Amino acid sequence: MRDRKPEAGEAMGSDEDESYVDYHYDDPGTMPGTLSIDKNAPPPEIHLIDYDAEQSTGRRVENPEELTPYLDNHSVSWADVRGFGSEDILRRLGKVFGLHPLVLEDIVNVPQRPKVEEYKDHLLIIARMVCPTSETAEEFFSEQVSLILGKNYLLTVQEEAKFDVFGPVRERIRTAKGIICNQRADYLAYTLLDAIIDGFYPVLEDFGERLEELEAEVVENPTRATLERIYLLRRELLMLRRAIWPQRDVINALIRDANPLIGEEVRLYLRDCYDHAIQIIDMVETYRELASSLTDIYMSSVSNRMNEVMKTLTVISAIFIPLTFIAGVYGMNFDPEKSPWNMPELEWYWGYPFSLVLMFIVAVGLVVYFWRRGWFESFSSQSKK
Amino acid sequence: MRDRKPEAGEAMGSDEDESYVDYHYDDPGTMPGTLSIDKNAPPPEIHLIDYDAEQSTGRRVENPEELTPYLDNHSVSWADVRGFGSEDILRRLGKVFGLHPLVLEDIVNVPQRPKVEEYKDHLLIIARMVCPTSETAEEFFSEQVSLILGKNYLLTVQEEAKFDVFGPVRERIRTAKGIICNQRADYLAYTLLDAIIDGFYPVLEDFGERLEELEAEVVENPTRATLERIYLLRRELLMLRRAIWPQRDVINALIRDANPLIGEEVRLYLRDCYDHAIQIIDMVETYRELASSLTDIYMSSVSNRMNEVMKTLTVISAIFIPLTFIAGVYGMNFDPEKSPWNMPELEWYWGYPFSLVLMFIVAVGLVVYFWRRGWFESFSSQSKK
Amino acid sequence: MRDRKPEAGEAMGSDEDESYVDYHYDDPGTMPGTLSIDKNAPPPEIHLIDYDAEQSTGRRVENPEELTPYLDNHSVSWADVRGFGSEDILRRLGKVFGLHPLVLEDIVNVPQRPKVEEYKDHLLIIARMVCPTSETAEEFFSEQVSLILGKNYLLTVQEEAKFDVFGPVRERIRTAKGIICNQRADYLAYTLLDAIIDGFYPVLEDFGERLEELEAEVVENPTRATLERIYLLRRELLMLRRAIWPQRDVINALIRDANPLIGEEVRLYLRDCYDHAIQIIDMVETYRELASSLTDIYMSSVSNRMNEVMKTLTVISAIFIPLTFIAGVYGMNFDPEKSPWNMPELEWYWGYPFSLVLMFIVAVGLVVYFWRRGWFESFSSQSKK
Amino acid sequence: MRDRKPEAGEAMGSDEDESYVDYHYDDPGTMPGTLSIDKNAPPPEIHLIDYDAEQSTGRRVENPEELTPYLDNHSVSWADVRGFGSEDILRRLGKVFGLHPLVLEDIVNVPQRPKVEEYKDHLLIIARMVCPTSETAEEFFSEQVSLILGKNYLLTVQEEAKFDVFGPVRERIRTAKGIICNQRADYLAYTLLDAIIDGFYPVLEDFGERLEELEAEVVENPTRATLERIYLLRRELLMLRRAIWPQRDVINALIRDANPLIGEEVRLYLRDCYDHAIQIIDMVETYRELASSLTDIYMSSVSNRMNEVMKTLTVISAIFIPLTFIAGVYGMNFDPEKSPWNMPELEWYWGYPFSLVLMFIVAVGLVVYFWRRGWFESFSSQSKK
Amino acid sequence: MRDRKPEAGEAMGSDEDESYVDYHYDDPGTMPGTLSIDKNAPPPEIHLIDYDAEQSTGRRVENPEELTPYLDNHSVSWADVRGFGSEDILRRLGKVFGLHPLVLEDIVNVPQRPKVEEYKDHLLIIARMVCPTSETAEEFFSEQVSLILGKNYLLTVQEEAKFDVFGPVRERIRTAKGIICNQRADYLAYTLLDAIIDGFYPVLEDFGERLEELEAEVVENPTRATLERIYLLRRELLMLRRAIWPQRDVINALIRDANPLIGEEVRLYLRDCYDHAIQIIDMVETYRELASSLTDIYMSSVSNRMNEVMKTLTVISAIFIPLTFIAGVYGMNFDPEKSPWNMPELEWYWGYPFSLVLMFIVAVGLVVYFWRRGWFESFSSQSKK
Repeated sequence: MRDRKPEAGEAMGSDEDESYVDYHYDDPGTMPGTLSIDKNAPPPEIHLIDYDAEQSTGRRVENPEELTPYLDNHSVSWADVRGFGSEDILRRLGKVFGLHPLVLEDIVNVPQRPKVEEYKDHLLIIARMVCPTSETAEEFFSEQVSLILGKNYLLTVQEEAKFDVFGPVRERIRTAKGIICNQRADYLAYTLLDAIIDGFYPVLEDFGERLEELEAEVVENPTRATLERIYLLRRELLMLRRAIWPQRDVINALIRDANPLIGEEVRLYLRDCYDHAIQIIDMVETYRELASSLTDIYMSSVSNRMNEVMKTLTVISAIFIPLTFIAGVYGMNFDPEKSPWNMPELEWYWGYPFSLVLMFIVAVGLVVYFWRRGWFESFSSQSKK
Repeated sequence: MRDRKPEAGEAMGSDEDESYVDYHYDDPGTMPGTLSIDKNAPPPEIHLIDYDAEQSTGRRVENPEELTPYLDNHSVSWADVRGFGSEDILRRLGKVFGLHPLVLEDIVNVPQRPKVEEYKDHLLIIARMVCPTSETAEEFFSEQVSLILGKNYLLTVQEEAKFDVFGPVRERIRTAKGIICNQRADYLAYTLLDAIIDGFYPVLEDFGERLEELEAEVVENPTRATLERIYLLRRELLMLRRAIWPQRDVINALIRDANPLIGEEVRLYLRDCYDHAIQIIDMVETYRELASSLTDIYMSSVSNRMNEVMKTLTVISAIFIPLTFIAGVYGMNFDPEKSPWNMPELEWYWGYPFSLVLMFIVAVGLVVYFWRRGWFESFSSQSKK
Repeated sequence: MRDRKPEAGEAMGSDEDESYVDYHYDDPGTMPGTLSIDKNAPPPEIHLIDYDAEQSTGRRVENPEELTPYLDNHSVSWADVRGFGSEDILRRLGKVFGLHPLVLEDIVNVPQRPKVEEYKDHLLIIARMVCPTSETAEEFFSEQVSLILGKNYLLTVQEEAKFDVFGPVRERIRTAKGIICNQRADYLAYTLLDAIIDGFYPVLEDFGERLEELEAEVVENPTRATLERIYLLRRELLMLRRAIWPQRDVINALIRDANPLIGEEVRLYLRDCYDHAIQIIDMVETYRELASSLTDIYMSSVSNRMNEVMKTLTVISAIFIPLTFIAGVYGMNFDPEKSPWNMPELEWYWGYPFSLVLMFIVAVGLVVYFWRRGWFESFSSQSKK
Repeated sequence: MRDRKPEAGEAMGSDEDESYVDYHYDDPGTMPGTLSIDKNAPPPEIHLIDYDAEQSTGRRVENPEELTPYLDNHSVSWADVRGFGSEDILRRLGKVFGLHPLVLEDIVNVPQRPKVEEYKDHLLIIARMVCPTSETAEEFFSEQVSLILGKNYLLTVQEEAKFDVFGPVRERIRTAKGIICNQRADYLAYTLLDAIIDGFYPVLEDFGERLEELEAEVVENPTRATLERIYLLRRELLMLRRAIWPQRDVINALIRDANPLIGEEVRLYLRDCYDHAIQIIDMVETYRELASSLTDIYMSSVSNRMNEVMKTLTVISAIFIPLTFIAGVYGMNFDPEKSPWNMPELEWYWGYPFSLVLMFIVAVGLVVYFWRRGWFESFSSQSKK
Repeated sequence: MRDRKPEAGEAMGSDEDESYVDYHYDDPGTMPGTLSIDKNAPPPEIHLIDYDAEQSTGRRVENPEELTPYLDNHSVSWADVRGFGSEDILRRLGKVFGLHPLVLEDIVNVPQRPKVEEYKDHLLIIARMVCPTSETAEEFFSEQVSLILGKNYLLTVQEEAKFDVFGPVRERIRTAKGIICNQRADYLAYTLLDAIIDGFYPVLEDFGERLEELEAEVVENPTRATLERIYLLRRELLMLRRAIWPQRDVINALIRDANPLIGEEVRLYLRDCYDHAIQIIDMVETYRELASSLTDIYMSSVSNRMNEVMKTLTVISAIFIPLTFIAGVYGMNFDPEKSPWNMPELEWYWGYPFSLVLMFIVAVGLVVYFWRRGWFESFSSQSKK
């Protein structure tokens, strides 16, 4: 998993420093409530959508204080904030929405573990959205999104919004499509959570395809790169699992805890969302088991290859070494003239043909022996491929 | 697991795209309640069976609205719907039975995870039925079936009904066999669930046979294809496990939750059904452990083979290389005439026989050495096979 | 695990069809309560033992109806039924004891998973008894026994009673030994359950011996058959585990559930029985871990052997190949007469001894090199064995 | 784990029969309450220590009945029994302390699983004490000790007391050291349990040392014996784990269950004892994981060695085989006189030097090739060791 | 994990005795409450910080009794003790703070398992702080710190304070930065716990870097040292896991148990601290899985290398052995003059060129054969690296 700055085509073991410790932490002993601001990041952009059953308006907001009137009106107000570039604006935002310093810290000091926390007049939901990278980079994007749900407003804060899973929802509000405009802010929060959870499916599909490719590769042409890809896949699946597991608990907590901010009807919808989270977890676990089995197959493919190599060596050596020995014998220089026992074959009329026939018989004998032990099968099966 | 369109004889790693992400998902941000309709699918067929202790009638129904009168009469009415080809008919069906949009979505957007959900006047049960493929394709069919149980009606919705596990039940109602006709709709729902659960046994038996074949194969003639088959089996078992686990929870929930739609007597029967689900899970876990052990045996068979190959090479090389060396020595061209020390053996009367005897002694010595270290056992044991 | 018809000496992978799907199942859609009767099986034999503190009588009963008077008298009546050959007698038996059709199905359609179920006036306990085979067949017998415990009667139903774990109990009643005759039917049920659980110990002992044999074999002389035996052992342990786990739950349920049919004193005894079940599970798990470790040792033994083989090949080749090269050099036919540079060694007075000494030095050098790298240790350690 | 008769230096797979089924069991169907007495064992020795805050007395007791007066006095009475050689004395002991037959059975028929059971006026605690063997035998002693805690007495029963973990406690009472003499019998029971639990630490330390030795051995000089030692260690750890796990539950039960025999203050001390049990379990699990990792390292060391062997063979073969070929070419007997094309090199003035230079170039080329592929690194790293 | 005396650069298997049994234990039978004092350790240093919203003072305290007045005043008093060199001072400290002998034992006899225990007027928290070693030693420092939280005082006791995670907190109090000075002692305890938990992050980061290095190493240049480093990493991760798991439970207990010493507001902050502990556990588990996967890759890299070696040997041998055979044939000494059948090739005009061409054809044929089987790919891919 790569936060914020993924680069395509990175090899395993290269400069992936920050992807490893992928939770935010301050230096030990830092004061709670301290915000970690990257000065070079773009300043926050605030978009407001205000709607009810009759109408919907959307506008860009410059100062957080402009949002104050919307918190108490009767329409649903959705403030969407992107980017963490200015501590000042973020703190003013916290003031407008009456956020505890720890809440603001959780929102800004990404990444945090997904969780839900109840406060007096609002609910903090930390979620994590994912998105497949479009290139062949074997990774996926991942960003934290925080939802603060109040009585009739919803504040969402995203890191950078490199990808926009909220687009279709915004569109549905704008075109007043579906029942969303008749519902309260809790339904909007559900809709966004649902979009976040559903965003895992394309990543899973991506993983499924990589798994299939690896299956084919591991059987047909396993190389060391194959194993590295399997390892990368397993690592990514661990990351994905760590992203989805706590979100399941988040949704479960929203359904189970009788918080008055979440209506009964919306709980019904959340149950559906919970089912999806369970399904995704199921898939991730299945993929992990399959990826783990692939390692076994890889190892065995390597062993099989070695077997082939050894058989080739053995067959060729075992056939020619005895022949070479026979040739060596008749290359000895014992003097036939000194004694009738000294290499009389050399003097025979049929001596040379005799030696060749002898070699031929030995060679055929060995070939037949190996044939009957089935060592040639692999060669033919190999060449058929 | 293959949904709807299994094709026999597919090799691992080939075009199995959809079998991997085997849960339904919409594009993130899609409106809840959206139905995914495959326009080319056949339109739904609706069959109605209406029965009580005295009589039973069955007929084909064209319009969902025709079912309305049956929902309130005193006999048990079983409406069986197959195929999802028409959104219009499905929506009208939802209206007739008063289904929540999310229920309709769960029914139509297959596959969903098996689950049970309570609504005001009906119970939604999502189940998954399986069936072995008749051919040698190492897979099994799998289809979702949704049951909506009302006071005296049962609506079942199947994907395509490529296989019919409900046939025997239909027959039992038609022939008024057994106690089924004296019972209410809850008993009918139990009977169908029981048929679905029992449908796992033939698939398991199929798997048991494949496991046995693989056991024999892995010992007698392990090839790379064997390992692929083991991998496929493990993958299928993962799929089967994912299908049966949630169904156990479904049945357990039906027994435990005191829903008035399920009578006390039927709960007794469901306990029996629950036992079967547990047994199936037991078997699946056992098979998974055995399949995992088979991989070990495979690896060791491959190693054993390599051992044989190496021994063959070593025995032949180790015997002939020293002999060839001796022959090479007596093939040197030192001139015996220049000095009495220059290869006097060449001039000996018994020189050549001496060299042959020397070779023979070396060869026999090596053979005896290898014999005593037990290297020939494997050859004889090999040939005995 | 083999049900009913074990045959000794079966090899792995041979005709073990029914041992794999070892739970009973009907064709999907079969009516609940259907009994699967094997027409060729012997008809049920019914033995009745009636006893109280004063006396005990035992007799063979032909018709189930003869048992009726015993159900209500004050003495303890134990009816022991063996064999399932007649559906008629079984159904009449069910009538006499007032058994629910599902109970009768559970009793007859073996094998079922061990369980306990409460009915209005009796308790159904499904248990599984095991027994080691006396021969070397690496399996164990296993049979289902069902106990129906009423107020002052106990009905036990066994498959075939190929082995009799109830014999000692029957003897204790006949000889009025121990406190058994002063106790009620619940104590009798405990005594039988205890005998069933204790019957696992000899099987475990059998397994322990096989494990030890395998330990010795894997170290001293690992062959492919060793691995197959390990695999068989692991498979059997899985079966044994599946037999004992649910029985622990059965006994726990009997202790925990405050069923009036089980007296307080007997619960105390059952606690003892529960301890034994836990111990057996402990042993099974330990054996499974050890069997799994043995596979590792096996693999490493195979690797070690290959190492020995390779070392032998390498030492012999590495020593003789350079020597053969030297011999080959002096076997070249360059004409010394054409030039003083053409193989002057051949003309030297000490040419031949020089070449032999050269070879000797090379050989000794290589032997010393290999010696210092410790390659000869394995040969000597090998021969010491 | 070895009960009662450990012998040093046993090799794996040798006569370790009884260590495998290491729980006591009777023949199935044996009457509950039967005691298994080994007639050859020494008769029980009974030691009594009676103490209160003022004084303490210790004496040897011959007849169990002599203990009766001590059960009701106000001082704390600790009766320590060792050896099971006489059924008569054991039964009389049971009578004096009012023990249920099942309790007596649990005490005598060792080994039992550690457990705690409440009776009307006493508490039965079955514990297991361990002790490292002083020799190099890679095992540990293990003995059952049963504690019966009454209002102001404690009865402890040990198998043979081959080792005495209670010595320091006895000494503390005798010298009136610590607060023990001001406390009741429950504190004494805690003190003994604490001594038993603390007795696991030296065994663990022993295991830690063996693990370290194995780590060094597996890296420096892995032999087959190393793997056997790892296997033995794993087996022993399984045994140790089986001994400590249930004792944790025993202590937890003593803390949690509000038994009046255990005072509030002693519960506080038991919490400390519980912490130790948890620590020991932590260590055992850690050791198990490390031992399991060692197997991996062993396997890889074996593979690495094979790699070295193969490289040696390959380098030597690959260098000399081409040279031998060249020598073979110039050893051919084509007659240069028959044609100018027939081996003119043989007639060249620089023919022989040319051939030697050719061989030298080939050899250097191959050496450079292997050097650049890094094959010589392992040789030098090898020799540095 | 190394307690107190880590030395850099230790190799696996060397003198790491005490790191293995890393929990404190006394000889079995030792009296509870005994303190293990290392006489050579420095005497305890006591630092007192007393602060409220208005002011803060810090001083060094010589005698524990000087602390008494601070326990009851209204400001928050933080006594920080380092070093265990004097039993006298420690016992006096225990008296001043009214500590139970077992509490003192837990504090002094390090290391203990992290835990929280409630006493009448204070809370004992045993925690464990970690710190990466600055050198390349692949270990981390670890020290126990005990917190005794009273109504308005906090006593912290550290082993040696080789590293100071409390420094920033002390600084924040001194400079009256943040809200800390307005808070009670419970907030101070939270702040310190938070610093301890956050101290795990740098260690994790260290581990993440080592994991990356190992990933690169295992792919590019796996040596035996790589595997040893992986093993060390796994061992360290086990240690780290054992340190963090119980601390999570500690924080959870503080949040959950309604102890009046911990205010509601501080519980909110502890929730944040709990999240961090969960995150750390997540990371540790992820690292463990990755480290375990690395072992697989290592094994496969070794196998791959062996494959390369074998291929090289096979290609060279397989090409030259047949050639050498041909050369051997024409080196035989059959006398062409004795018969026209005796090696007529030797007399041919084109005999020698014919033999060279024959060899060339055979060699090219074999090269093409190996080429088509893809054996040369690895050589080229190898050299590209």
